[in-house]
Amino acid sequence: MATLNFDGHEINHSSIFNNNPLDPEEFRRQGHMMIDFLADYFLDVEKYPVRSQVAPGYLRQRLPESTPYNPEPIETILQDVQEHIIPGLTHWQSPNFFAYFQCTSSTAGFLGEMLSAGFNVVGFNWIASPAATELETIVVDWLGEMLMLPKSFLFSGNGGGVLQGTTCEAILCTLAAARDQMLSKIGTDNIKKLVVYGSDQTHSALQKAAKIAGIHPKNFRAVRTTKSTSFALSPDSLQSQIRKDIEAGLVPLFLCATVGTTSTSAVDPLGSLCQVAKDYGMWVHVDAAYAGSACICPEFRHFMDGVEGANSFSLNAHKWFLTTLDCCCLWVKDPSALIKSLSTNPEFLRNKATESRQVVDYKDWQITLSRRFRALKLWFVLRSYGVANLRKFMRSHVEMAKLFEGLVAMDKRFEIVVPRNFAMVCFRVLPKAMGMRKPKQSHQNGNAENGHYKVVVEKEEGSSNEVNEKLLESINMSGRVFMTHAVVGNVYAIRFAVGATLVEERHVIMAWKLVQEHATAILSTNSQ
Amino acid sequence: MATLNFDGHEINHSSIFNNNPLDPEEFRRQGHMMIDFLADYFLDVEKYPVRSQVAPGYLRQRLPESTPYNPEPIETILQDVQEHIIPGLTHWQSPNFFAYFQCTSSTAGFLGEMLSAGFNVVGFNWIASPAATELETIVVDWLGEMLMLPKSFLFSGNGGGVLQGTTCEAILCTLAAARDQMLSKIGTDNIKKLVVYGSDQTHSALQKAAKIAGIHPKNFRAVRTTKSTSFALSPDSLQSQIRKDIEAGLVPLFLCATVGTTSTSAVDPLGSLCQVAKDYGMWVHVDAAYAGSACICPEFRHFMDGVEGANSFSLNAHKWFLTTLDCCCLWVKDPSALIKSLSTNPEFLRNKATESRQVVDYKDWQITLSRRFRALKLWFVLRSYGVANLRKFMRSHVEMAKLFEGLVAMDKRFEIVVPRNFAMVCFRVLPKAMGMRKPKQSHQNGNAENGHYKVVVEKEEGSSNEVNEKLLESINMSGRVFMTHAVVGNVYAIRFAVGATLVEERHVIMAWKLVQEHATAILSTNSQ
Repeated sequence: MATLNFDGHEINHSSIFNNNPLDPEEFRRQGHMMIDFLADYFLDVEKYPVRSQVAPGYLRQRLPESTPYNPEPIETILQDVQEHIIPGLTHWQSPNFFAYFQCTSSTAGFLGEMLSAGFNVVGFNWIASPAATELETIVVDWLGEMLMLPKSFLFSGNGGGVLQGTTCEAILCTLAAARDQMLSKIGTDNIKKLVVYGSDQTHSALQKAAKIAGIHPKNFRAVRTTKSTSFALSPDSLQSQIRKDIEAGLVPLFLCATVGTTSTSAVDPLGSLCQVAKDYGMWVHVDAAYAGSACICPEFRHFMDGVEGANSFSLNAHKWFLTTLDCCCLWVKDPSALIKSLSTNPEFLRNKATESRQVVDYKDWQITLSRRFRALKLWFVLRSYGVANLRKFMRSHVEMAKLFEGLVAMDKRFEIVVPRNFAMVCFRVLPKAMGMRKPKQSHQNGNAENGHYKVVVEKEEGSSNEVNEKLLESINMSGRVFMTHAVVGNVYAIRFAVGATLVEERHVIMAWKLVQEHATAILSTNSQ
Repeated sequence: MATLNFDGHEINHSSIFNNNPLDPEEFRRQGHMMIDFLADYFLDVEKYPVRSQVAPGYLRQRLPESTPYNPEPIETILQDVQEHIIPGLTHWQSPNFFAYFQCTSSTAGFLGEMLSAGFNVVGFNWIASPAATELETIVVDWLGEMLMLPKSFLFSGNGGGVLQGTTCEAILCTLAAARDQMLSKIGTDNIKKLVVYGSDQTHSALQKAAKIAGIHPKNFRAVRTTKSTSFALSPDSLQSQIRKDIEAGLVPLFLCATVGTTSTSAVDPLGSLCQVAKDYGMWVHVDAAYAGSACICPEFRHFMDGVEGANSFSLNAHKWFLTTLDCCCLWVKDPSALIKSLSTNPEFLRNKATESRQVVDYKDWQITLSRRFRALKLWFVLRSYGVANLRKFMRSHVEMAKLFEGLVAMDKRFEIVVPRNFAMVCFRVLPKAMGMRKPKQSHQNGNAENGHYKVVVEKEEGSSNEVNEKLLESINMSGRVFMTHAVVGNVYAIRFAVGATLVEERHVIMAWKLVQEHATAILSTNSQ
């Protein structure tokens, strides 16, 4: 076995790679073994309990106390994965996983991740691997065009995109950029005056980012939403909160609006929110972590209407776009604002390409210096499935959610808690289904000012919440499906999020039957 | 093909997976293809130019303008990778890569990454995949023990560790924890008084983290180091800076000390620095991103002496510990400080395991909510190679660096710029080797107060810096090796970092010959 190196000298591989941890032939042997292991896992994943059934501390009892002194064969390690790791997994790739929002994998996304881990380049700046930077600028433009993002967010306009790990990073980076832009106008000492806005439905990532960025904890506003707007942020509520803050001598800085909230997939009205924010010179970030992917379908694109007034937009391609964890796409209209806030120029990274100003150095678009070659997996997904199949994929999940919604509607014991927008249904057992013969003491006791009617309703709701929580735990304990919950407007709702790559109609139907069975059992106990 | 599902029903796979993006048999076919592609890449990597030779914008000219509407076969995509991506890579896995610090891959690390991408679980809290959390707590204890970290940093003591992406995140998290701890004592409005300390050799990650965390830009101190301490931070210099700041009404907050700086792999004296910091109630973080890995060898462990006085310690297992990007191990003595600063408790994540307080929820130990199952790859590396081989691996690189150092010392035209600590040699062509017949105008002109001797020396140094920069560019342009540079004490040094997984003695010897050839050519031009 011999090949030629760059300048024509022959390389004898058999002598080179002996005992090397990256010996190509050993890599090949073990790699094939792992592919078969994983293919078998996907064949088997449906037979495992979806939510892991182990008890806290299970693994420390099963593994040795320290690193082995001598090497162990891959066969032994894989056997331990099968026996000790798999039982401790909650199987996100199971077709019976309906919890949180999905984290979708696919063959193409997986292959892209493999290739990235194999090349293992660190594309902090252009010269450290030009292909990593350039492919990223290309795929974010491709995806941006599929989303019909305004040109001003694309490299082909004067904006640009970047692939980060998660929305938490995207929010922190844009918030830091907005903060520094504002402080350069009002003075760094005024950091304590800056106010960050979201709704009570905004992802906790916003509050965390505000804490990390040094925003005064008293200056974080989670503006209240109500059922009347399906838990979307009302521009009027935002405006009145901003006015109060300005009267108190504070400075409105940043609004995070959401397309597809975590609890109920509510959609904030981007157009009118951006208008309010514009009046105060605020930065608007649009978090479309979950639902952004669906907006590649023309019939869902309207949920993003108004995005042209925002400063930045992000979606998690690892959620509903098949790229495997992690891959958050962030687009900004003004990359220079990000770069001003996040750039560093240590001597050891100085190079001619950077000095030529003809290249993007992504280290200045994110928190970290080192970065993986994430663009490969997004490129593989876009090309392997194409626009047509990607739309078909989203639509099939929405159709399955509609199917589930229809099944819920036919059973009078249940209700849909909020209108469905995408592929997630929020439902619950109705208080009336419980007969309310022996209402349990509610956690939310009526106080003296409440009328009798309100006390009864609150007792019913409190009791209903308890029953729905019990129902969900009973369903999840079965191991046959996994769903999670939300509480909106004091109502405990069960979330049924369709989106696992392997899910099919029959899984949705089976899940609904399971819900009915467990509800029947619990309601009969409850009314005895 | 049929298997049984969790409750005993038969599943007919042939009907389930048709046209599914995660069809197991298609996954198997394409997965095997990718393994062979990568094994061949490792066989061939030596023949590619190490630093990519493409020009800015090369890729946009070669790829289509938008996402294809219809799917493309994997074979076509892989062909494009070969033709268009590989030429744009700077080959970090080449045995001739001696730049920056290495980002080492290995078969075990790669397999762990594959398994993590295949399971694709999101272990934000324990219940979302107990194995992901529990394996992480176990492997950080294993590695901590190999490093002889004090028990107080391990879960088996009352501390604990976490796997993050990079050191930038580790520093930002610990800085936020330190900041909030201090602000809870002195009041949140005093954020503008907090001061962060490093040396002028500390990684740029510290300054960036300070900016992101809202530390006043005027309150970042890069304490000057000199050649007399081999560019390590002097405790006296630190103390006198702290005293000045306290006199100015500021509050010392955070010190980042380094074991193995980026420019020259200098080691800050942890024991005495921690003593200084302790007197002022500061948080000390130890950044051992590069050199920490070597400390698993007893003969290098002394570089970490004094760590018992620090609050937190981190190393990048993706640098010199074979785990593939990214994997930063962070240990803290007081996890509750991190958690106080970084925890969020949204309703949708509420669960019984968390409420039982018997589990770790890693979302509260990091910036992001979502997180990959990184523990798998570290576990695979630890078990596949064992303590014995991992030490052998580090030692072989140190030996090769010694070999290179010896070769440099034998050629009188060169000097070693600073003493070598680990597997990196800083060297340069000496000013005297250039004959200095026609000293070029230096960038650093002597001013009127300088004596004639100093002016001459500075002119010589300036001219030497130019020659060394030219030499490095000439070497890198050849494509046969890739090295990078540092500037310390106004001296431009070429860094020769040994550590690629595939590197052998013959590559080191070849690299030195190449340096000599290019130096001869450049010196002859220069002295003409």
